[in-house]
Amino acid sequence: MIPNMEPFTRSVDLLSGAIAADAVVEDRRVADLHGYYLDDSGAEPDRIIYRLYAVPVPEANSELQCSTTVIEPGRIGREYHMTKGHFHAHRDRSEVYLGLAGDGLLILATEDGRHRVEPIRKGSLSYVPGGWAHRSVNIGDEPLAFFAVYVGDAGHDYATVAEHGFPVRVIQGDDGVPLVMEHPGHRR
Amino acid sequence: MIPNMEPFTRSVDLLSGAIAADAVVEDRRVADLHGYYLDDSGAEPDRIIYRLYAVPVPEANSELQCSTTVIEPGRIGREYHMTKGHFHAHRDRSEVYLGLAGDGLLILATEDGRHRVEPIRKGSLSYVPGGWAHRSVNIGDEPLAFFAVYVGDAGHDYATVAEHGFPVRVIQGDDGVPLVMEHPGHRR
Repeated sequence: MIPNMEPFTRSVDLLSGAIAADAVVEDRRVADLHGYYLDDSGAEPDRIIYRLYAVPVPEANSELQCSTTVIEPGRIGREYHMTKGHFHAHRDRSEVYLGLAGDGLLILATEDGRHRVEPIRKGSLSYVPGGWAHRSVNIGDEPLAFFAVYVGDAGHDYATVAEHGFPVRVIQGDDGVPLVMEHPGHRR
Repeated sequence: MIPNMEPFTRSVDLLSGAIAADAVVEDRRVADLHGYYLDDSGAEPDRIIYRLYAVPVPEANSELQCSTTVIEPGRIGREYHMTKGHFHAHRDRSEVYLGLAGDGLLILATEDGRHRVEPIRKGSLSYVPGGWAHRSVNIGDEPLAFFAVYVGDAGHDYATVAEHGFPVRVIQGDDGVPLVMEHPGHRR
């Protein structure tokens, strides 16, 4: 019953979010998020929006997946750089975020259209309960970095968000201040 | 199937490890660790060895328990300040540590007497797989602080460690350097 795993240690740069050694590094570029933004026609397709550093372990319920995410500052049109966002494939599985650097928002949404907005900043500890899709948004001028842990077999359901979007979007207002706007196209 | 939980955010001081707002704070004093050290007769029973800040959530398999631990610098006799150490009651459940400040060692042990020693320092990400008891030791001159996440229903088995101890102890050598010593009283 006890998995045959050895303890290990990785090194996380708490200022930049980078994980050293054999972490899996994946970049998400403008082209990868086509369809998530209202209008990405003015953005260079190769531009990196965010980078993931993952420390994969077996996708078992008793394990914990660890990663960091670094979202570059910037906007696509009036929308701030953001992650795709997803539900967990196993809907009841939770996730926690520990903010490391930058200034961001965590947008959470349920399948029946409720939403919540929580801050992400240095030292913020966010709890993402089961049933809540989660997307992070960089509203600052510096990279937004956070450490995430989720239940090992949670899995990812990106399709539901890709199809229906989030109930709100985060855009830069006319005075340069971030605004959380209801998304008219979102199902209710 | 999806628990009815709302998202929430707490604030972790990444320098000191303290968690603000309604975290549960527990102190572990010399008297609480009587029997864990070779000889605590010279130590003030009320002295705080470490403090726990916990953010409790339901003890369900889909949840994640988050906490920080702050171990004060110091020794009991030649042994450095350390936590009690425990197995998880559900042996297969894993835990992760993210080091925040200080200089420490994570001592891991299996029930059949194997052990491992991993560093804890700023940015160290330690993976504690199922089946490994874990104890942290402050070998530095400053408080040792780390953030921990474990599977929600892991539970604690302190009794096995209290009865059998760890295979090794961490003591200050004659030259002031930490030594990891085999513990002669440990079962094999």
